[in-house]
Amino acid sequence: MFPINCWYVAAYAHEVTNDAPYPCQVADNKIILYRDENNQVVAMADRCCHRLAPLSLGRIEGSDIRCMYHGIKFGSDGACVAVPGQKHVPKSFCIQTFAVEERHQWVWVWIGDRNHPDLSLLPDVQGQDPEIYGIQKDAIDYNANYQLLNDNLCDLSHVAFVHENTLGANAGKDDWALSKPDIENLPRGLRFTRWFSNQSAGKGFDAGDQRFDMWIKSEYLIPGILLMNSHIYPTGVAAQFDFGEPQGIKPLSSVWNTQAVTPKDEKTMRYFYCLGIPHNEPTYGLHGNFDIMNVAFSEDKRMIEAQQKVIEENPTARLATTSHDKAIVYFRKLIQKASL
Amino acid sequence: MFPINCWYVAAYAHEVTNDAPYPCQVADNKIILYRDENNQVVAMADRCCHRLAPLSLGRIEGSDIRCMYHGIKFGSDGACVAVPGQKHVPKSFCIQTFAVEERHQWVWVWIGDRNHPDLSLLPDVQGQDPEIYGIQKDAIDYNANYQLLNDNLCDLSHVAFVHENTLGANAGKDDWALSKPDIENLPRGLRFTRWFSNQSAGKGFDAGDQRFDMWIKSEYLIPGILLMNSHIYPTGVAAQFDFGEPQGIKPLSSVWNTQAVTPKDEKTMRYFYCLGIPHNEPTYGLHGNFDIMNVAFSEDKRMIEAQQKVIEENPTARLATTSHDKAIVYFRKLIQKASL
Amino acid sequence: MFPINCWYVAAYAHEVTNDAPYPCQVADNKIILYRDENNQVVAMADRCCHRLAPLSLGRIEGSDIRCMYHGIKFGSDGACVAVPGQKHVPKSFCIQTFAVEERHQWVWVWIGDRNHPDLSLLPDVQGQDPEIYGIQKDAIDYNANYQLLNDNLCDLSHVAFVHENTLGANAGKDDWALSKPDIENLPRGLRFTRWFSNQSAGKGFDAGDQRFDMWIKSEYLIPGILLMNSHIYPTGVAAQFDFGEPQGIKPLSSVWNTQAVTPKDEKTMRYFYCLGIPHNEPTYGLHGNFDIMNVAFSEDKRMIEAQQKVIEENPTARLATTSHDKAIVYFRKLIQKASL
Repeated sequence: MFPINCWYVAAYAHEVTNDAPYPCQVADNKIILYRDENNQVVAMADRCCHRLAPLSLGRIEGSDIRCMYHGIKFGSDGACVAVPGQKHVPKSFCIQTFAVEERHQWVWVWIGDRNHPDLSLLPDVQGQDPEIYGIQKDAIDYNANYQLLNDNLCDLSHVAFVHENTLGANAGKDDWALSKPDIENLPRGLRFTRWFSNQSAGKGFDAGDQRFDMWIKSEYLIPGILLMNSHIYPTGVAAQFDFGEPQGIKPLSSVWNTQAVTPKDEKTMRYFYCLGIPHNEPTYGLHGNFDIMNVAFSEDKRMIEAQQKVIEENPTARLATTSHDKAIVYFRKLIQKASL
Repeated sequence: MFPINCWYVAAYAHEVTNDAPYPCQVADNKIILYRDENNQVVAMADRCCHRLAPLSLGRIEGSDIRCMYHGIKFGSDGACVAVPGQKHVPKSFCIQTFAVEERHQWVWVWIGDRNHPDLSLLPDVQGQDPEIYGIQKDAIDYNANYQLLNDNLCDLSHVAFVHENTLGANAGKDDWALSKPDIENLPRGLRFTRWFSNQSAGKGFDAGDQRFDMWIKSEYLIPGILLMNSHIYPTGVAAQFDFGEPQGIKPLSSVWNTQAVTPKDEKTMRYFYCLGIPHNEPTYGLHGNFDIMNVAFSEDKRMIEAQQKVIEENPTARLATTSHDKAIVYFRKLIQKASL
Repeated sequence: MFPINCWYVAAYAHEVTNDAPYPCQVADNKIILYRDENNQVVAMADRCCHRLAPLSLGRIEGSDIRCMYHGIKFGSDGACVAVPGQKHVPKSFCIQTFAVEERHQWVWVWIGDRNHPDLSLLPDVQGQDPEIYGIQKDAIDYNANYQLLNDNLCDLSHVAFVHENTLGANAGKDDWALSKPDIENLPRGLRFTRWFSNQSAGKGFDAGDQRFDMWIKSEYLIPGILLMNSHIYPTGVAAQFDFGEPQGIKPLSSVWNTQAVTPKDEKTMRYFYCLGIPHNEPTYGLHGNFDIMNVAFSEDKRMIEAQQKVIEENPTARLATTSHDKAIVYFRKLIQKASL
């Protein structure tokens, strides 16, 4: 079950070149990405229409791709342009292409109606523009259904347990589980807001004994895009605004966590995650955060892949629901609705 | 097909602690074992009722276990005692527990009617009490159906072939195949008795040129428990008792082989095996036996895992039966009957 | 789908000895090969009729094979000759045997009607007789359906692309794709003939700047036997014979490529390939060819195993057909017809 008529992150922009096709998989579609002579990204099914050899073993020739089994060549629109050994090029020889958009250092592929990609549905990924932010980024592959990672990211109460020694290792880590964010349902996702008050910045932030109030505002959007903006204030600011949204006050520092969960198939996925730190703000050690993130995300992977196995072994097991699961339940309904 | 209302060996007692849950699998059940604050063993399904995260990644807190995904905590009776972030603890939040018994250095789990574990069905495993016996023990995992190993242990004629250079490498090894034990059918297994007369003690026994008569008496019980007691006598004793059970005569030495075959699922199992040598008897090199056993049991594993593959590849193949298979046939019927 | 009443290459003759059974797999049949006391090859199903233990773990005793699980012994005709521990040897105890023929350094197994192996269907594999030819040989295993490799060998247009840096790295490599051989349909295969004129001999031939005309004549026979004979002539000979078969003129050098594709099951196969160079002819560096072949055949394997995966992922995908596929289509029809 995958949302259709939806943009998925297929790759980092820098991974896609004119040298060789880049193979990836999105919602059961094996795809190659490459750049044509105008540097535009091309997305095409990773199989030749002739004998089903993978085009990812093919050769880019200008804006075209040649299957390197029998040499059949296709243009960037997927239409065949040459069949070695014969003059006639049948119109039926063609490769399925996908609408594709390069934005914010990610390559987005549209899964759905090929002729009506809707750019208005493309999430506005702030925090990944290198002119404004120092970006650190990585990706890991999971052997698990992507909705388990969506669940994980829609309920951060797990930080207090899964990440008790990493992301949650700050003075008030239990707050992740004991209190809850305000949640607003959006047409294609959720908005979360919350304060952490009088906290040390945590291991990842390496800011010594200093204490802060932190205001976190994030959106989680179909199919699994996290846009999280954390703002650090002096202690007292949370109370000053009665634990509501702070207005007209500049934070000491801000950081963007932007992440994308892309299902490869029902049992595997790729997880992209970036950290964006503004160039011209005091960082309070925020640059150390990415190493902690790498460790923390291996903690999630260990837990979620283990959970996946238990689910597979118990296909009829029912789940129980806690008060933290409200966002999960809503987001799963959105996924289901978008998948029809 | 697994016997129900039956005790299975799930672990060695020393493997189960209060530090971390010990994961194991018994007859399709993934289980964790741990010790509560009173040192009592707890056996519980290895999945949280909330989102099916495995409790084997959880944390023991006193007598309780906490799922380390979202922090839900359960008592040793499986009932939920805390849900972080909410006061209400639903009664429906609970984990399946299993009756469990620690005896003779093994942890036994009851698979069947949870409310009526029958201790009278627990095999009396002599030979594993360290006060009386010097114990050596180990376990190996098999990729094969457990009944193939039961077959193996119910028909020791294979010793002459599978173990021709190890357990069978004594003067009269062919006797294992050329003669047969006396077999008595029991309600839950079989009893085997036999003499080997005028034999060298075999590689494992390292007793030089000395020759002995050996009386072996063993039981093989559901689901796959071997209790084998071997007694060594001077040559002539077998004939003295007309090759029947020796009465009123002390053996030169005795040794216990105790083994347990535990199915994990239909295609995998765990095989526990122990050697018990009395502290205050001449050993005739019996202490060397365990190294030979380790080699011999890898010989069985090689043969049985290969047999498993052939069986899987030939699901409709019929088996032939020799005169050695009498015990196998009876034991398989017991397994089948107990599995209904 | 495998041709029946057909000879398959199961092994190289030197791989089959009297020391230990040689396990192989042909068209879904797990088979052991060994030599009896008269050096005749025996082919037998690799499973004991008793408990399905594999005979490949057995022991050769003279002309017999003993299953080393419980010691049951079978003659080279598959009939049981001994059951340890009982006098009666049931007639029903027997192992399926296969007609087998050792010829041209290959061991051929007949899959089909056991009682009517047809030696007239055994391909005449010239070029593998060590008295006449210097032989180099090897084999590789594929994770792919064997018909994909048959396809590959029936349409050598791929040489220009898959092997552009190895077998195709000669002056006129594109000829492989731009021109076509003459094709003659045979009752059990195809005959291909073609000229390459005014070509350098290619990397594999290591003949410097010299140019040649090359006449290639090959047959491709069920189930996947390639008999390819390449003849090198001075330039001009092709034109002299109007690009037809050369008559009454001795080539400068000739080489045999003989290959056999043996399906193990529907998803795996073994690929045998030999190079035969006449002892008493100038070689023009032909002896260097085998190293190139090894590299080239790993290029095929990479492409074909990738193709297999795409096919498995797209079970309903249709294939397109080019003018090069004529031989493939015909040969697949032969395979289908022979498999009924």
